[in-house]
Amino acid sequence: MIKVAINGYGTIGRRVADAVRAQKDMSVAGIVKRKPDYVAREASRNYRIFSSDKESLKAFSQSSIEAEGTMEELLDDVDIVVDATPEGQGEKNIQVYKTARKKAIFQGGESAALVEASFNAYGNFVDSWGKDYVRVVSCNTTAMARTVSACMEKFGVRKVEATIIRRATDPNDSKKGPINAIEPSLGFPSHHGPDLKTVLKIGEANTVAIKVPTTLMHVHVVNLTLEKSITQDDTLDLFKEYGRIITVSGKEGLISTAQLMDLGKEMGRKRGDLFEIPVWKESIFANNDNLRYIQAVHQESDVVPENVDAIRSMLQEKDKETSIEETDRAMEIRGKN
Amino acid sequence: MIKVAINGYGTIGRRVADAVRAQKDMSVAGIVKRKPDYVAREASRNYRIFSSDKESLKAFSQSSIEAEGTMEELLDDVDIVVDATPEGQGEKNIQVYKTARKKAIFQGGESAALVEASFNAYGNFVDSWGKDYVRVVSCNTTAMARTVSACMEKFGVRKVEATIIRRATDPNDSKKGPINAIEPSLGFPSHHGPDLKTVLKIGEANTVAIKVPTTLMHVHVVNLTLEKSITQDDTLDLFKEYGRIITVSGKEGLISTAQLMDLGKEMGRKRGDLFEIPVWKESIFANNDNLRYIQAVHQESDVVPENVDAIRSMLQEKDKETSIEETDRAMEIRGKN
Repeated sequence: MIKVAINGYGTIGRRVADAVRAQKDMSVAGIVKRKPDYVAREASRNYRIFSSDKESLKAFSQSSIEAEGTMEELLDDVDIVVDATPEGQGEKNIQVYKTARKKAIFQGGESAALVEASFNAYGNFVDSWGKDYVRVVSCNTTAMARTVSACMEKFGVRKVEATIIRRATDPNDSKKGPINAIEPSLGFPSHHGPDLKTVLKIGEANTVAIKVPTTLMHVHVVNLTLEKSITQDDTLDLFKEYGRIITVSGKEGLISTAQLMDLGKEMGRKRGDLFEIPVWKESIFANNDNLRYIQAVHQESDVVPENVDAIRSMLQEKDKETSIEETDRAMEIRGKN
Repeated sequence: MIKVAINGYGTIGRRVADAVRAQKDMSVAGIVKRKPDYVAREASRNYRIFSSDKESLKAFSQSSIEAEGTMEELLDDVDIVVDATPEGQGEKNIQVYKTARKKAIFQGGESAALVEASFNAYGNFVDSWGKDYVRVVSCNTTAMARTVSACMEKFGVRKVEATIIRRATDPNDSKKGPINAIEPSLGFPSHHGPDLKTVLKIGEANTVAIKVPTTLMHVHVVNLTLEKSITQDDTLDLFKEYGRIITVSGKEGLISTAQLMDLGKEMGRKRGDLFEIPVWKESIFANNDNLRYIQAVHQESDVVPENVDAIRSMLQEKDKETSIEETDRAMEIRGKN
């Protein structure tokens, strides 16, 4: 049984904790939380809680929520840490993990230079094999890596062009904006193109990002130059082979990110998550070696299965296909539809 | 003096009325309004008001706002009609104009098949020369036609690729959505690409449109394949030659459509309009024969100067350069910055 610590129980951490807990070969030894808030209170029903430091431990002791100790005490007892602390904290935290001689997985907010490998399950599972410090790329890069790596395997991809329409902030945030404006990332390319190259061996990846006032999902307009000529049906058939990609249709009423998130709820997913990358069937347009499609990304949850697979790769526990299959079965990920 | 009737006093009609009124060679003979609402009340300070039909005339007679008669009476007295009625009304209205033997300009919501020519001032001013029925293309197509036609003249354009991030509705509407979702136009290309070809002689124009929850402006990510190699400076210099294109900078605080609309207000424009198409300097990326840039579109106002120029082309009053110069001077359009 792999013992996992979850450091940081925000948008990603809480979901990775539940996904790890659902696996047969791993368990959550404890979660690290800074504040004794409503999220900690709910978490205490399922997990042992540790504070991020001594000061935080004091805050817990003055609350009704019990923390068993500090992060360092939790680290003694685990095989690996999933670090889901806020962006930029990784540089500080990695020193703690090194001192404790523990492997660690970071999230996409950290720089690729911090770690030995960047991770995407479909794209480069083996690159993290046995590694100590790995980064699961961001939600947007993970989403692109999934569909693009599928196309790479079957069609060959010479060039990626994508416009990323980004959600402004997550649904549980009430601080950030914009609330009524469109804000482009000036400068070209946006960081997503270079980031994609950290997980896929791809020649050219050009991305432009535009922030818009919504909280639900990102949307990508993807335009690929392939190594061979294909049809729309080839693409539909291809995507059906991948559990973490689903094809959806406007004819079924799935015309925007609003209905896609409603689908996540109807599927009975905790928090209404949609781990799969939905690609609109009607948006798939193939013309000789040119393939276009539009996909959406549930930014809160799409990287969760990748975190689980990264654990198995780093601990050399399961090969790519076995790990992905186990993760998907446990999380009830049900592409291949 | 050219006598102009404005049929429909909504988002576009009211602005075209003011723009016509500002010209030295034309005047507004009257506006046609359906309802005696707050917009009609304000309009009555500057314009003679006519009702859209007998029923509407009755509504006016029961209000405090005077209507001098119905549309047909106004038509007797004018050289040309600018039809700015709701999308799809044009097919019905053109019969009325034909019976009255009056020239008419329609807006981008009408089909290209309804008219003899589609119009963009920079793109194809002469195509409407002497014509009776002309359509000014939509706000998005007008915006693309401006910057793309500039590039065509100087660089030659082999292919247009654009992603259009569309505002959900106009600021004075409180009915439509989405309010928290991203909604792609499924199917490829969106209507904008073919529409662009009605005003520019261009081989390939591929567009994708994505609706987002904001009311202020549209944003376009434009990707051109040119006939020659150019630099960023070539592009900046080019756009400065055109009064209806302005280059703006994030360094000046113009980082989103929110600040661009604030600029329109600070410029002292009535209704805070921004007739010019702003292109972000930092977004201009030139690599050999590939040019990318991001531009915004004030959907309520960018087609207004085109309506004025279309009048002069159809009545064979002024050549392209003279008309554009007169329109811009009267409207205080001040690109070439």
